[in-house]
Amino acid sequence: MPYGERDIFQSRPIAYFNKFAPMKNDLLLRAAKGEKTERVPVWLMRQAGRILPGYRKLREKVKDFKELVKTPSLACEATLEPVDVLGVDAAIIFSDILVVPEAMGLDYLMLESKGPLFEKTIQSRKDIEALRIGSIENWSYVTQAIRLTKSELNGKVPLIGFAGSPWTIFAYMTEGKGSKTFSVAKRMLYAEPEMAHSLLDKITRTTIAYLKDQVNAGAQIVQIFDSWGGILSPEAYEEFSLPYIARICDALSPLVPVIAFPRGAFFSSKAIAKLNCRIIGLDWTIAPSEARSVLQGKTLQGNLDPCILYAEPKTIRNKTREMLQQFGTQEYIANLGHGVYPDIPMENVQTFIESVKQYTLS
Amino acid sequence: MPYGERDIFQSRPIAYFNKFAPMKNDLLLRAAKGEKTERVPVWLMRQAGRILPGYRKLREKVKDFKELVKTPSLACEATLEPVDVLGVDAAIIFSDILVVPEAMGLDYLMLESKGPLFEKTIQSRKDIEALRIGSIENWSYVTQAIRLTKSELNGKVPLIGFAGSPWTIFAYMTEGKGSKTFSVAKRMLYAEPEMAHSLLDKITRTTIAYLKDQVNAGAQIVQIFDSWGGILSPEAYEEFSLPYIARICDALSPLVPVIAFPRGAFFSSKAIAKLNCRIIGLDWTIAPSEARSVLQGKTLQGNLDPCILYAEPKTIRNKTREMLQQFGTQEYIANLGHGVYPDIPMENVQTFIESVKQYTLS
Repeated sequence: MPYGERDIFQSRPIAYFNKFAPMKNDLLLRAAKGEKTERVPVWLMRQAGRILPGYRKLREKVKDFKELVKTPSLACEATLEPVDVLGVDAAIIFSDILVVPEAMGLDYLMLESKGPLFEKTIQSRKDIEALRIGSIENWSYVTQAIRLTKSELNGKVPLIGFAGSPWTIFAYMTEGKGSKTFSVAKRMLYAEPEMAHSLLDKITRTTIAYLKDQVNAGAQIVQIFDSWGGILSPEAYEEFSLPYIARICDALSPLVPVIAFPRGAFFSSKAIAKLNCRIIGLDWTIAPSEARSVLQGKTLQGNLDPCILYAEPKTIRNKTREMLQQFGTQEYIANLGHGVYPDIPMENVQTFIESVKQYTLS
Repeated sequence: MPYGERDIFQSRPIAYFNKFAPMKNDLLLRAAKGEKTERVPVWLMRQAGRILPGYRKLREKVKDFKELVKTPSLACEATLEPVDVLGVDAAIIFSDILVVPEAMGLDYLMLESKGPLFEKTIQSRKDIEALRIGSIENWSYVTQAIRLTKSELNGKVPLIGFAGSPWTIFAYMTEGKGSKTFSVAKRMLYAEPEMAHSLLDKITRTTIAYLKDQVNAGAQIVQIFDSWGGILSPEAYEEFSLPYIARICDALSPLVPVIAFPRGAFFSSKAIAKLNCRIIGLDWTIAPSEARSVLQGKTLQGNLDPCILYAEPKTIRNKTREMLQQFGTQEYIANLGHGVYPDIPMENVQTFIESVKQYTLS
């Protein structure tokens, strides 16, 4: 281990972290870059979660989800478990997309089985002006967790960093919580478009700084989760979501491969194809053949419906094989089309992962 | 008035109801059939609802939403108000898609601001076998409301009947309530596909009987709401939702024009184009030009984002005009892409309707 427990939480110059252990399994990085891979790499969104026994024990130790996110040693432990237990080809840092609004000065509560709740929401220009552009001191618990995890991984698999898309973060900051329609957030887009753009700009600047710090700390690839793009019209999506994702791609792609995950927004696929990023994440509403035809030159990631993992092993194996046949084995990262659901049996997740690993194109 | 208050709730032979008053405004029917219209007809999904003062008063009179649905005179009153107050070109019978599961023997509660809750859900073959195929005695309150409304409308505008798609009803019957992921419903599709098909078949047979009875009572056009098709993959959609919508279209299209509204499922647009129905309803995630190109020969309905109605009048007028320019004025029915939200100001809804009416292609 290059760093002892003692000094693990201290900030170090970037150069120091270039001395990471060489990668033992770099399938994900090669697939991400479009290089040849001997088998398809696989990981799962929300792979560190309630499906795992160690995670459930970790949760019992802390008062809430946020304590886990904010304690680097625990976030590290949660990040490592799926690598060890499930045998996935990547770790993704255990964290939350709402680190960004909190870094900007907007605190939230994470309510058990209800999701996030912001006690104050952004409604006016004054509210926006009061927000800061976040910086390292606001998210050092994340970069510390990344450093610690990189050290513990010791080159076993690559580590993924992530952030929400500016529109998705905007939706939470204005709505204050999840919503079926996000009508409060969307009202601002249509009623106060300039104000909306100024908030989106501020979130974007923060997100770029945040992701760069994740890369400096050791993230080897980053994913942008646009969870709520799909509730916009193509016109609104291409005005209020995609240009901000594009700015993040432009800033990060020179450093690491970027995965854009425009969930539910494939109606704008032609515009998405132009993003300056190597990888597009897909949900299950897109047929693999259509994705391949519209997104030529990109590595694709996805897209099995997590609900298939409720079925018996035979069905899981068949559906996984069909997916691999349709995407092909190159420039491809196997994944679900959404985070794994907490009540899916771990054995079924393992069946999915094994099916990918055993697959060889005959 | 052809029928007095006295005998309005009695069942009558179909022939009797062919003696309806001649239509004063048949724009919707002509647009539906692909005939020439001198201006674009307009109505709104959920036009009879909390946006209207009369509706809010009606709700104070009853113990819950279901009492309103089940009392023909009140359902009639709710149906007529938007025709009088908003000046829309169609009435849609005030009712609920969950009439069908209740008719099959599965009761539900409608919880204030929470939505439906089924105390018992469908989980097994035995549960499915216990369900009946509904018939007229199970929904006579709806056909009575239709008869009464037709009489009161006296040919002013056409009356629309409706039902949920079988998959959407299936989702509620198995899940028991609304859901973000509908993972209980989808689990059955993947884990027990044959069982799922047998339930979908039973719902479909009930829905066909239900819609035929609505037509017999006087509905001049029917809409099938596929509210939850969009959470399926294209493959699952084309196995578990679309074939059942197709059966309903085949049964009803010889009688009246049918509107299929496959919300969020435009990923299967090529398969949707083959439905035996005259009209396709569109949500706002589809660009009008793309819909026109894939759905040639159909009348299209939609698709303004309801959130635009939160903006100032100028924005509403501009966005409505853009929509009309893109769809064109023929084979087109102006509408929102979803039901109007209850907190949208009535004046803004009126601005939308007036904008459609004033529009003439220059």
